[in-house]
Amino acid sequence: MPKTLKELAEHVGGTVLGDGSILISGIAGIDEAREGEITFLSNLRYVKKVKETKASALIATQEVEGFARPILISKNPYLAYAKIVRIFHEEVRPAPGIDERAIIGRGVTIGKDCSVSPFVFIGEGAEIGDRVTVYPFVFIGDGVKVGDDALIHAGCSIRERCIIGKRVIIHCGAVIGSDGFGFARDEKAYYKIPQVGIVQIDDDVEIGANAAIDRAALGRTWIKRGVKIDNLVHIAHNVMIGEDTILVAQVGISGSTEIGNNVSLAGQVGVIGHLKIGDNAMVGAKSGVAADVGAGKVVSGIPAYDHRDWLKTSMTLPKLSEIRKQVHRLLKEVDELKAELKNWSKR
Amino acid sequence: MPKTLKELAEHVGGTVLGDGSILISGIAGIDEAREGEITFLSNLRYVKKVKETKASALIATQEVEGFARPILISKNPYLAYAKIVRIFHEEVRPAPGIDERAIIGRGVTIGKDCSVSPFVFIGEGAEIGDRVTVYPFVFIGDGVKVGDDALIHAGCSIRERCIIGKRVIIHCGAVIGSDGFGFARDEKAYYKIPQVGIVQIDDDVEIGANAAIDRAALGRTWIKRGVKIDNLVHIAHNVMIGEDTILVAQVGISGSTEIGNNVSLAGQVGVIGHLKIGDNAMVGAKSGVAADVGAGKVVSGIPAYDHRDWLKTSMTLPKLSEIRKQVHRLLKEVDELKAELKNWSKR
Amino acid sequence: MPKTLKELAEHVGGTVLGDGSILISGIAGIDEAREGEITFLSNLRYVKKVKETKASALIATQEVEGFARPILISKNPYLAYAKIVRIFHEEVRPAPGIDERAIIGRGVTIGKDCSVSPFVFIGEGAEIGDRVTVYPFVFIGDGVKVGDDALIHAGCSIRERCIIGKRVIIHCGAVIGSDGFGFARDEKAYYKIPQVGIVQIDDDVEIGANAAIDRAALGRTWIKRGVKIDNLVHIAHNVMIGEDTILVAQVGISGSTEIGNNVSLAGQVGVIGHLKIGDNAMVGAKSGVAADVGAGKVVSGIPAYDHRDWLKTSMTLPKLSEIRKQVHRLLKEVDELKAELKNWSKR
Repeated sequence: MPKTLKELAEHVGGTVLGDGSILISGIAGIDEAREGEITFLSNLRYVKKVKETKASALIATQEVEGFARPILISKNPYLAYAKIVRIFHEEVRPAPGIDERAIIGRGVTIGKDCSVSPFVFIGEGAEIGDRVTVYPFVFIGDGVKVGDDALIHAGCSIRERCIIGKRVIIHCGAVIGSDGFGFARDEKAYYKIPQVGIVQIDDDVEIGANAAIDRAALGRTWIKRGVKIDNLVHIAHNVMIGEDTILVAQVGISGSTEIGNNVSLAGQVGVIGHLKIGDNAMVGAKSGVAADVGAGKVVSGIPAYDHRDWLKTSMTLPKLSEIRKQVHRLLKEVDELKAELKNWSKR
Repeated sequence: MPKTLKELAEHVGGTVLGDGSILISGIAGIDEAREGEITFLSNLRYVKKVKETKASALIATQEVEGFARPILISKNPYLAYAKIVRIFHEEVRPAPGIDERAIIGRGVTIGKDCSVSPFVFIGEGAEIGDRVTVYPFVFIGDGVKVGDDALIHAGCSIRERCIIGKRVIIHCGAVIGSDGFGFARDEKAYYKIPQVGIVQIDDDVEIGANAAIDRAALGRTWIKRGVKIDNLVHIAHNVMIGEDTILVAQVGISGSTEIGNNVSLAGQVGVIGHLKIGDNAMVGAKSGVAADVGAGKVVSGIPAYDHRDWLKTSMTLPKLSEIRKQVHRLLKEVDELKAELKNWSKR
Repeated sequence: MPKTLKELAEHVGGTVLGDGSILISGIAGIDEAREGEITFLSNLRYVKKVKETKASALIATQEVEGFARPILISKNPYLAYAKIVRIFHEEVRPAPGIDERAIIGRGVTIGKDCSVSPFVFIGEGAEIGDRVTVYPFVFIGDGVKVGDDALIHAGCSIRERCIIGKRVIIHCGAVIGSDGFGFARDEKAYYKIPQVGIVQIDDDVEIGANAAIDRAALGRTWIKRGVKIDNLVHIAHNVMIGEDTILVAQVGISGSTEIGNNVSLAGQVGVIGHLKIGDNAMVGAKSGVAADVGAGKVVSGIPAYDHRDWLKTSMTLPKLSEIRKQVHRLLKEVDELKAELKNWSKR
């Protein structure tokens, strides 16, 4: 099913620079692309590779020096690439049907055209929407609600009463609705705080492999529309994550923290509990957020502060021991100068 | 099943300030509580919210300005809250019974009133105590012992010969007894060190979702009574964790390290191998512990040092590049002063 | 099945200092070893314990002061220990056979002497080699290839078309082939980049519990021969890891980064995307790698720089606030000196 370059351009709302009639048979990375395939330039880091690619066409924002073949001009090459991938690689989901080796509890409702694999467990009273796909070894607790077109990969656990929105994708091994980590000190030992709330995940959220999202102590842990959560992320009880926010791999967020819309937390960031991070804020990789972050702020460091200051500090840190030596020398020299002046003044 | 405020106070060993005869129908957070419900004030951060809450009663240590309704006075409001939650939200466990779709190996013994779900695998010779609950997709290896009243959530794996104490709670996806990470260099490649020890988990331990606790190379990895482990924590082979110690989410502990009783490691802390951390020590979030920590010490940083020094350093770090500029200016000015004095001395 | 010390020495290519005819019945750690057992000294940290051990023999590189019993002399005591463990603790795998309660898809081929447990799901067209062991609750997607002698522990998920090499060991809960984390911004919301590549894992790789390795967007995420990956490690799409490289627990590697052979990343290290780390490089625990690292370099810090400079900085950091005070005093004193000299010059 090859397509002409012109067809691809029309599909993504772009234009063609050069011969739009050439046939494109697939899409590949700039190093791997072969003749007949199209590749893309979305990261300028790779602009030098354009000369060596064997691709027959390129997706880019403009003409690129060193690439004499046709170019698909797009304002957003990364988005154009994503849409073209789907032309050559159709999404494959298991055929609809509820396998008889799945266990479906009493009072469960399942919408139309769902695919429920063998070795799936759905607890009593759960409500599953239309066109939902559930892979093997998925546990869905009593009273869970799953929205239309959700996709739940193998090995996930969704505990009782949690709510999963439409088109949500949950990757293998993720856990939704585990108990929050709450204990009250009772004389010497700990007394477990019952975690009787839920997790509510709104539409179009994606949750990474082996991530863990704890249920609220009371009320809900709330992941709003469009949030994207990477692998091995931890979200504690009663956290609220605003729309379209991005949590990169291994981020950890402590209890009751509220994160705004369009926020970006880079990999391995940690946020302490009971904080607020404003809309559009960004936190640099490995940072530790220990205080509220205002809307639109960019912060880094442990604890996190203004990102530009952090950059300056970072560049200075390797010289810290030299600075210390200079300060010691200065202390000595200034003492000597003072002594010398004192001597002079006695003359 | 509403209760009078007086009944609740008696249940938690507290007293009532105001009308103890009012009926309480539930418990909720300070923002979410509605008329007829009780809320609690355990974190002074929220004291201003007391004026706006719709709750009909409050749990607190004393009278609170701005809250004119009845108060349940308790020395430990957080503990009182925990106990009252259990009054309004009874714990729900699956009904006792061993589902015929579970696979029970030869020689397995299972105590009375256990609940073993379908899709559970219990290996040969395992010994399961009384009133144990095992959810679907749990793997229990050969010869594992599980104590009375343990609760094992969906998707956990407990490998061969490991020992789980009484009332232990293991959350979804946790792994107990995976091989330790040990390799000996053999000329160019690595030779796997067989990991033939076990994990021993004592009574009243709780283990978070998707946590991983490795079995010992020889002997045991030992998690003692009352330890609370949060989500995605990693514990390497031959580690020993003392009683009532708290490991917050995403902590990682390297091999053979010994941690005392009542220690607290905050989120994302890492500890290198073969160390000792003394009783009652505390380690700040994201710290990297690279040396022994004495009993009762509080440390932070990478590598970790005295927490108060770390706080001072943290406050100074954003100004580091300015300090460097000042030092450079000082070096220049002191040189000028020295030159000037030299000139003077020649006169 | 006790062995003489001489037999053990021959097995590991070592020699005996003292009586080689003594019978050894087992191997244990230096604290736990009892009479009749052998122990080992591979970490000099434990040399003082040699005097107190009850072991009847010791594996070491040379005579050890304070240990008068026979010694098995080996150039590599840790390797010798590993080989001797296997003498006393034979590896136990489930008996060969494909359990009828496993679900095997159409067109699956399974080699000889495999053990496939109940509650295993193998998708259509998968190819399983000889002597492969698959524990319960393992999901193997359509078209996956698993090499001879691979060992897949309980609860793992290997998604469609991924390739697993010979003798690969995958620990409980690990996920291979989850979608990479890729989204293109489309006006306000995110558009998911289809992740249509695979994960290729070469021979002799070991993957820790609850680790997650994402499939490539296009092409492959590639883990080369002999790589050892610890628990809870995250590897993003299109990453390439060179031969015999070690990734310690909770490491995270962002997309498209290339790591060389024999590299070592210590615990909780993070690496940003699109970087290159050269052969034999080492990265200290908790570091954040934000730029290419040359072959053989040793780096630490956030962001990472030369390890020796980092050590010097680390030792200075606790004194940073004192340094700042000294600089402030110097600024004042130098100003005073300048003023004094000015006064003098007016005389």
